Amino acid sequence: MSSTFGKNLHISVFGGSHTEAIGVVIDGLPAGETIDQDALLRQMARRAPGRDKSSTPRKESDIPRILCGLLDGVTTGAPLCLIIENTNIRSKDYSDLKIHPRPGHADYTAFVRYGGHNDIRGGGHFSGRLTACLVAAGGIARQILQRRGILIGAHALQIGPVFDRRFDPVSISPEELIRLSETYFALLDPEKESAMRDVIEEARMAQDSIGGIVECAVTGLPAGLGSPMFDGVENVLGAALFGVPAVKGVEFGDGFGVAALHGSENNDPFTYGEDGKVKTLTNHAGGVLGGITTGMPLVFRCAVKPTSSISRAQHTIDLSRGCDDTLSVHGRHDPCIVPRAIPVVEGVAAMALLDMMSGQGLL
Amino acid sequence: MSSTFGKNLHISVFGGSHTEAIGVVIDGLPAGETIDQDALLRQMARRAPGRDKSSTPRKESDIPRILCGLLDGVTTGAPLCLIIENTNIRSKDYSDLKIHPRPGHADYTAFVRYGGHNDIRGGGHFSGRLTACLVAAGGIARQILQRRGILIGAHALQIGPVFDRRFDPVSISPEELIRLSETYFALLDPEKESAMRDVIEEARMAQDSIGGIVECAVTGLPAGLGSPMFDGVENVLGAALFGVPAVKGVEFGDGFGVAALHGSENNDPFTYGEDGKVKTLTNHAGGVLGGITTGMPLVFRCAVKPTSSISRAQHTIDLSRGCDDTLSVHGRHDPCIVPRAIPVVEGVAAMALLDMMSGQGLL
Amino acid sequence: MSSTFGKNLHISVFGGSHTEAIGVVIDGLPAGETIDQDALLRQMARRAPGRDKSSTPRKESDIPRILCGLLDGVTTGAPLCLIIENTNIRSKDYSDLKIHPRPGHADYTAFVRYGGHNDIRGGGHFSGRLTACLVAAGGIARQILQRRGILIGAHALQIGPVFDRRFDPVSISPEELIRLSETYFALLDPEKESAMRDVIEEARMAQDSIGGIVECAVTGLPAGLGSPMFDGVENVLGAALFGVPAVKGVEFGDGFGVAALHGSENNDPFTYGEDGKVKTLTNHAGGVLGGITTGMPLVFRCAVKPTSSISRAQHTIDLSRGCDDTLSVHGRHDPCIVPRAIPVVEGVAAMALLDMMSGQGLL
Amino acid sequence: MSSTFGKNLHISVFGGSHTEAIGVVIDGLPAGETIDQDALLRQMARRAPGRDKSSTPRKESDIPRILCGLLDGVTTGAPLCLIIENTNIRSKDYSDLKIHPRPGHADYTAFVRYGGHNDIRGGGHFSGRLTACLVAAGGIARQILQRRGILIGAHALQIGPVFDRRFDPVSISPEELIRLSETYFALLDPEKESAMRDVIEEARMAQDSIGGIVECAVTGLPAGLGSPMFDGVENVLGAALFGVPAVKGVEFGDGFGVAALHGSENNDPFTYGEDGKVKTLTNHAGGVLGGITTGMPLVFRCAVKPTSSISRAQHTIDLSRGCDDTLSVHGRHDPCIVPRAIPVVEGVAAMALLDMMSGQGLL
Repeated sequence: MSSTFGKNLHISVFGGSHTEAIGVVIDGLPAGETIDQDALLRQMARRAPGRDKSSTPRKESDIPRILCGLLDGVTTGAPLCLIIENTNIRSKDYSDLKIHPRPGHADYTAFVRYGGHNDIRGGGHFSGRLTACLVAAGGIARQILQRRGILIGAHALQIGPVFDRRFDPVSISPEELIRLSETYFALLDPEKESAMRDVIEEARMAQDSIGGIVECAVTGLPAGLGSPMFDGVENVLGAALFGVPAVKGVEFGDGFGVAALHGSENNDPFTYGEDGKVKTLTNHAGGVLGGITTGMPLVFRCAVKPTSSISRAQHTIDLSRGCDDTLSVHGRHDPCIVPRAIPVVEGVAAMALLDMMSGQGLL
Repeated sequence: MSSTFGKNLHISVFGGSHTEAIGVVIDGLPAGETIDQDALLRQMARRAPGRDKSSTPRKESDIPRILCGLLDGVTTGAPLCLIIENTNIRSKDYSDLKIHPRPGHADYTAFVRYGGHNDIRGGGHFSGRLTACLVAAGGIARQILQRRGILIGAHALQIGPVFDRRFDPVSISPEELIRLSETYFALLDPEKESAMRDVIEEARMAQDSIGGIVECAVTGLPAGLGSPMFDGVENVLGAALFGVPAVKGVEFGDGFGVAALHGSENNDPFTYGEDGKVKTLTNHAGGVLGGITTGMPLVFRCAVKPTSSISRAQHTIDLSRGCDDTLSVHGRHDPCIVPRAIPVVEGVAAMALLDMMSGQGLL
Repeated sequence: MSSTFGKNLHISVFGGSHTEAIGVVIDGLPAGETIDQDALLRQMARRAPGRDKSSTPRKESDIPRILCGLLDGVTTGAPLCLIIENTNIRSKDYSDLKIHPRPGHADYTAFVRYGGHNDIRGGGHFSGRLTACLVAAGGIARQILQRRGILIGAHALQIGPVFDRRFDPVSISPEELIRLSETYFALLDPEKESAMRDVIEEARMAQDSIGGIVECAVTGLPAGLGSPMFDGVENVLGAALFGVPAVKGVEFGDGFGVAALHGSENNDPFTYGEDGKVKTLTNHAGGVLGGITTGMPLVFRCAVKPTSSISRAQHTIDLSRGCDDTLSVHGRHDPCIVPRAIPVVEGVAAMALLDMMSGQGLL
Repeated sequence: MSSTFGKNLHISVFGGSHTEAIGVVIDGLPAGETIDQDALLRQMARRAPGRDKSSTPRKESDIPRILCGLLDGVTTGAPLCLIIENTNIRSKDYSDLKIHPRPGHADYTAFVRYGGHNDIRGGGHFSGRLTACLVAAGGIARQILQRRGILIGAHALQIGPVFDRRFDPVSISPEELIRLSETYFALLDPEKESAMRDVIEEARMAQDSIGGIVECAVTGLPAGLGSPMFDGVENVLGAALFGVPAVKGVEFGDGFGVAALHGSENNDPFTYGEDGKVKTLTNHAGGVLGGITTGMPLVFRCAVKPTSSISRAQHTIDLSRGCDDTLSVHGRHDPCIVPRAIPVVEGVAAMALLDMMSGQGLL
């Protein structure tokens, strides 16, 4: 078992870069939820490649086909299965990758894990292409959450040396989250886009790639979501977010920044808001205490490594001959995965939170 | 469900700061494993409070009583239950905490989650005391791993502004890991202890606390451990490590540092080692690619927030009167939880890795 | 993993016949539920041995000690752990059983499963003694269900050749279920007790044992509990009930009797009851259609094999010498396990149903 | 969550009678297994309707399309998804069923469970059509088991008043199991087919249906498969088999017959076979003791209720008007589901056993 997620909302992702289709089964959706397929397509489009030079020129028709689970656009309560046909598959010889594992990729680890039987074509089941399924599942989940007042939005906090500004974790407007969640290359400060694109273009011209950080916020969550120890918001979201390829770190609230803080700085004082609701004056906790939501905005960040596929010659091994060798990876790659990772992070958060809400009978 | 963990090795933690006992059930241990109870006690002692001024003066008799699961010190294959009686419980009035939730604690979120029925005494099931159970479970798991050549050691990478040096992720000696795993306040560079203790003492004198980072390494893991997407090493360890109270961030390999790296810097070139085994020349990945171990050392870090309990007066609310108020938390607290968190992080890693090994039939 | 159960209510059973203690952790109980410990003890007493000649003369002090999870008798929402010390353990030599597996027992299969490391004393973790934990967990669960109008009662439908009458599945009175659930050797027709006791005494005098059937009914369940395919009431209860030692068959409604029925006989016509609620005129389905409750009484039966421990000489093998041999099992055994199995079946049903209710947010 | 199964082999079934397609994802298959697609199709054909008068005349093109998980016919270790397009869907008005729940069907319970949003067309996700997915998943699983010497075969033990002979649980030949597993309307005594067909035809002519029992045996399982209490063979198979629509009872070995047995009759004496292996002289246990396989043939039975869809007028309710009414179900139905249920039971057993084998590292 590997590509399945969730305790109450059960998600099962399948397919690979060059299989007939990829897709996802979502079992446990509440019945009676209208799914806006245009809104779903807009989310898919935010992740789709081929928009501009910041992403791979590869075109993929990310048009999902919903096989079951909806009746007249409304969830029936039965499992929903959605597939995306793989139509634009370039036939080429992958046998070279089978013996020359690409640095930074799962080629070698999958080779060991599956005794050489893994599908190496385009990365197989480890392909970034699979994130289309996560965006699709998340695109459905977020509609159900949004209907309950829960909004999710993310942005490129960092790309190489260029930083967007951070969320103010105490005050995040619904308008801003909605804007982010409908934008490609979403930024809190859109003026940073130009500098970020320069960094990406520089990497591309150098046959290289560049990493970054995605920051995500969720507003409207009720206080009291999550359970102690291993079923807290951080555990569940953490487990889910590390499922996004290229994510190497996950932090909540001040995250690694807490290392330099005193308790008197990090503790968020409780107060009654003007609406009579309990709030915190600051939100270093990122909306979670003891694994349970406080009702303040949930804020977290994911570190995204630079795309492993780069055109430069790289040192690797030849598994067939048992010696070192050099590899040049050809093909169409994203010089920076961060802009396209934004809706993936949002989508994964949506499906994990819907799972948790469902388990506590909060839908 | 909340305080249970694991798919094949099943761990169920119970108890609270002021209940009769705390404990843990471990179901799914391989049969025939000799458990060295002295070694287990040494791990428990590394976490136990009251050692010196860097931790709480509270004395806890962390002597575990194994109720079942062992016969003549050898695992039988049946569930092992271990309890620790709570003997040193100060009787006092906790009703104040019930109405004045402590900033940074789970008092308020647990109040909402459990409709006010949660046991507030000493933090109840959210108490750091529960980490004794994690060290116990981990202390058993690590013996089984160690017998298979897998070593786990961690150190205080950062406390406030003072840094220990990082692991060299390519070259970590078994001797060093063993030393770390048997030390209180473990450091790669022991000369940093004095400066770190100064920072802690300063916080203590200021009725405050200070955060830090624990860095952990695991050597001897076979290549090929883990599964794609949601059952990778990062997902499973991530979910487990966020179960350690106070952890607000988890990163693998270069973690958040990847944001500033190019692919050509971050990709780890494969090579054949002198022993004929596949290695990587660098280890930015921290030993995991596509969620699956490479066979290189596994390296990860946990951000540990400053202890929430501080003696200073803090702003909070009065839930009974529905207004803001001031709270002074009295009691015996750790000015810095990092030194005692080191064996907890190691222990949780051990139990998560044993679970994964077991699931792949690698024991 | 083996002795754990449940998706939302998580139950972990531990201990063996001769370990220091046995017990159970229940994680996921709703908070704020008052637990009547006298009522719990009454359930424990129904299962306890040594009542009369129908059961083993062995005395066990089935006094549970609740270590955590309750505060002033009310659930806190944190895991509840309950242990029962094993006080009346006869020291004797079990090495003979290690080499002479008892027919009908798990001695041989556990030997293979655990490579000979299993605790053979008194059957170890396979001992019927562990059912005390199931009655305890069920005894807590049933109080929570009863508070919501759900009643559970079972009786000895068959012991050897003697039959009690069956439940009328359309009309089961609350009074009758309450009476059954508070009785030892519960019967719908108490006049059958004498004939049943004769059969048991006959078996006992013949150094033999006798099997039977427990029939159980649950009233007050809402319609709509359960999910299709693998999470239906029959799947969940089936999986749980086969966890009761000695159960070799589970059937719902007419069960195996449906083989001889026509659809026109087996289909239960829907009708509106006088109270305006949907009912069925008959209840061959036993209250479940498509895995989901109809709102009619849930009725099921468990086949209970004759106690495997009999004093007669039996043919078996000598594992140490690799040849056939003869074994005489000495000790204190139940000539018929059925009367004591009744509260176990009820208890297991209670915990399984509470798990399902919890997962659907029906508590 | 509902239509998912398995701990290590993870199976997720989706679709409904009238959705675009039905299908199944199998995650966790061992890599490197050649799947014989012709053999798979032969299993599908055994379940497919329209063969003769004993089954519905409805034709379904049960040609599965494997979207991913195989490369050149060999499992890659990635999830396998298989879909079957629903091509032969008769367009008709199902609105009548929405208000007139069919007796014996899940129409009413699904209505309550999903607030009326369930897809009623052809029974929706509760349709017997979904068993094609179980046969497909099982058809793959059984090939992997067969390669390891494990054979699975079932037969119609009973249809109405006509009985086939039972398996001799001590001595089941591989040839017989192979014959059964390749036959439609499989019987140990083929001469009983004529009498059984008469019973079915009689029911059909009477616009009625008839129930039966499927008996299944598995040989070649290693001793030591299964775990105590809730992860035994009986728990796992029980939970899976109750997932087959129409199954109302599951029993192992002598099953409900144990109620009339003495221990001296029911206990299976151990002996060393001529091959030096441990066997039992009898096999009342059906190959399982304490939830763990003995190495003897695994034998179990499933009670199959008469098809709920019958053409006769039946009493039911009108949900729209809130009163009683009469319903005549038109359409193409199986007068007896037993012959087609045989490969379903075998398939479900195969997938459950493969899951267990996988979890114990026995593949």
